[in-house]
Amino acid sequence: MALPRLSFCVDIRFMMRRSIGVATDLYELTMAAAYFEQGMTQRAVFELFIRSLPQNRSFLITAGLDQALEYLESLRFTADEIGYLKSHPAFENISGEFFEYLREFRFTGDVWAMAEGTAAFGMEPILRVEAPLIEAQVVETYLLSTITFQTLIATKAARINIAAGGKDIVDFGTRRAHGPEAGLLAARASYIGGCLGTSNVEAGLLFNIPTFGTLAHSFIMSFEAEEEAFRAFLASFPHSATLLVDTYDTINAVEMICEKFGGPESNIAAVRLDSGDLVDLSKRTRALLDAAGMTSTTIFASGDLNEEKIADLLARGAAIDAFGVGTELVTSYDSPALGGVYKLAATEVNGLAVPRMKLSGGKTTYPGAKQVWRLTNQHEEYERDIIALTSESEPDVGGLRPRPLLEPVMKDGRIQGSDSANPLIAARERAKGELARLPKPLLELDCKHGYPVMISSLLEKKRGELSEKLIANRM
Amino acid sequence: MALPRLSFCVDIRFMMRRSIGVATDLYELTMAAAYFEQGMTQRAVFELFIRSLPQNRSFLITAGLDQALEYLESLRFTADEIGYLKSHPAFENISGEFFEYLREFRFTGDVWAMAEGTAAFGMEPILRVEAPLIEAQVVETYLLSTITFQTLIATKAARINIAAGGKDIVDFGTRRAHGPEAGLLAARASYIGGCLGTSNVEAGLLFNIPTFGTLAHSFIMSFEAEEEAFRAFLASFPHSATLLVDTYDTINAVEMICEKFGGPESNIAAVRLDSGDLVDLSKRTRALLDAAGMTSTTIFASGDLNEEKIADLLARGAAIDAFGVGTELVTSYDSPALGGVYKLAATEVNGLAVPRMKLSGGKTTYPGAKQVWRLTNQHEEYERDIIALTSESEPDVGGLRPRPLLEPVMKDGRIQGSDSANPLIAARERAKGELARLPKPLLELDCKHGYPVMISSLLEKKRGELSEKLIANRM
Repeated sequence: MALPRLSFCVDIRFMMRRSIGVATDLYELTMAAAYFEQGMTQRAVFELFIRSLPQNRSFLITAGLDQALEYLESLRFTADEIGYLKSHPAFENISGEFFEYLREFRFTGDVWAMAEGTAAFGMEPILRVEAPLIEAQVVETYLLSTITFQTLIATKAARINIAAGGKDIVDFGTRRAHGPEAGLLAARASYIGGCLGTSNVEAGLLFNIPTFGTLAHSFIMSFEAEEEAFRAFLASFPHSATLLVDTYDTINAVEMICEKFGGPESNIAAVRLDSGDLVDLSKRTRALLDAAGMTSTTIFASGDLNEEKIADLLARGAAIDAFGVGTELVTSYDSPALGGVYKLAATEVNGLAVPRMKLSGGKTTYPGAKQVWRLTNQHEEYERDIIALTSESEPDVGGLRPRPLLEPVMKDGRIQGSDSANPLIAARERAKGELARLPKPLLELDCKHGYPVMISSLLEKKRGELSEKLIANRM
Repeated sequence: MALPRLSFCVDIRFMMRRSIGVATDLYELTMAAAYFEQGMTQRAVFELFIRSLPQNRSFLITAGLDQALEYLESLRFTADEIGYLKSHPAFENISGEFFEYLREFRFTGDVWAMAEGTAAFGMEPILRVEAPLIEAQVVETYLLSTITFQTLIATKAARINIAAGGKDIVDFGTRRAHGPEAGLLAARASYIGGCLGTSNVEAGLLFNIPTFGTLAHSFIMSFEAEEEAFRAFLASFPHSATLLVDTYDTINAVEMICEKFGGPESNIAAVRLDSGDLVDLSKRTRALLDAAGMTSTTIFASGDLNEEKIADLLARGAAIDAFGVGTELVTSYDSPALGGVYKLAATEVNGLAVPRMKLSGGKTTYPGAKQVWRLTNQHEEYERDIIALTSESEPDVGGLRPRPLLEPVMKDGRIQGSDSANPLIAARERAKGELARLPKPLLELDCKHGYPVMISSLLEKKRGELSEKLIANRM
């Protein structure tokens, strides 16, 4: 199924289609102007991380890096955008040189990041930017919205796929997503998180994700009788039709399908249940289909599903082969945002990297450019992570194999090529591998277990020293 | 402040920037193919509504219509999009004529809708489409995602503005929105819902919404001392600076500002508190600023705020003049989706409109094209709504003034001109007027009160008749 699609995976890069210079918060640009006027051209290090895991989550699956890197590579300020800023009252005292600077603006920095599909935890840098201060600053808003949203959805998708225990999940959420683009990005992130595919056709065209569809009630209702509607749809889609059976009465519809379109030669791919008691209806539907010799016709279920409901349906013996999940998946309904932040970790002063941190109540950060080390035990299970300074060598913990999670992905503003022929499928495979290697209790839906993330002793020491210095300075 | 911006409100229409034919669910296009092959060219009526109000909401404020109409007017299928569909395994039996049809596709229908900024309730059609069946069907997904998301956010914004009791709210949520486009659309919807403006610069450029910014902690941390950072920012932004004061210690920073930059001639527009006990800190900050003669410097607060927290801060006497609200606003965190649906209400058979409905358990719809009547009493308060068939005359309820909420907004696929010079500001004013006319108990944050929405007796009768007929038919 993939090959014919590949020929139409057109060369439209997602981010190229928008003017994106002003897709940011105003303060990024006012700060840029102030840095510019102060002649502050030094390099800086920023790190993007989720402060802590939200309720009902015991791990994250990272996603969104591809769109983040495309943004960095294509970021420009158009004449319209610069004109808007010039006319903005806040910029009335800003010199023309700054606007000339914006006209020539390119992101020229280096980026390290966790590969998409990596398991991540609170406080761990998912992405690190090292670039001239202004460049590193103005990209904050866009990077956060792109990476935290896709990470949010890939994580939710992983939970739903865990609950389905190997049965297929298809993203059906576009209509309930936070706007059309959110639907597209959610389809992508859901695929990374383990879904089989999506109903979103644009995701098929742009990202080569398998796309699926069934039937709407309106189709059935457009015909005088349900049977006519099924007959018409089967005429056009003889091999791939999934017939929706609950428009008037589910069991009546299934009986009619068995009678009129059944038999061992039947081509009907699936029937879809969308309301009612899915355990009872699916069992009765399976029995009717089997009795009519339609053993290869599968049962697809949808209707406000989530991971808890799917786990419950399966535990109660529902005869369901695949699930369509919409609203809950694409909005991460039970936990609809991640506390993503992008914090200054160091600035260059006289050629030296000087660690930076903030002390604000409850929101203190760790200073310096950091790496995240993942330690795997001899059973190929992840045992703990260590956040350390990049200047530290590989941690040496007896019997555990360390692996650095942040890899170079952009150099001097250019995306570094991937080893993989299909990075999106690689990300999906990676996520699957991560779930296999996380400690088993982390996969429980009720999130009673945590994963150990340690801070290296040098990093703790540096934080303590800088904290004391900052407190002393302000006396 | 508005005039200089208007000159840069460029002529980029939001939807024109994307290829949008495939921004839909696959089943819309498979159904279209089946309708096409059956020669079903009759007209149909679809209605978009929210099935019921979600938790913590006792009204909705509609938004997103402008983007929906732009979509309908500009919807096309590009060669790439058609190529993708042709290569899709599901379409293997579909004739070339259907793809020729897509190449020439235009939306040619008529649309009625509630104006943006209208108060709406569960079951009430917000938008009604009358168009050839295929055209009316394929637009379902995009219309739902556009209108339900902006309505979700305009409603949340209205609640937050009610809690702020006239103090200003600025949308700061772009970074936590569900992707960059969601941030932009949330800024627009927040403005309709009563916010003063947004931090999202693109919303300023495209929609002429006032944009605001302060300072990030990273700016302060990029200087050796906080005082230097403030001095640098004030050099570039002498009249509009909002100084962030919690990077190291809030009260220390405020004292320093008073000492170094204070006095009655001080130009500092505002200080921003972003962490800690905002009641205590704001009172102490106000006292320090006043003592330094800085009575016109206002206090801006942010930091994971929502309507309940704002109401609580103000009830406890916080000396805060304006609030920045992010995550909670742009994700509608406590209720992150609306159950928006788009249902077939009638189809044309032999030139007559035949009402349609579905019976699925718990999800029954009302048949026929409908109008929503809002009844206002002599105190200019809304008293109840009546959902009736469009064929019914104006309801005659003693002492109450009826007004139809669905107005013609598109004819033969062309947007009907608005009376207003600035429709977005008109929508914002309309929302404000709606909140003034809703029954007062509906404005309480705890949502213990409902608003009466009645079904006309003719509509109930028609539903009963059709329901009986459908049940009889399937026996």
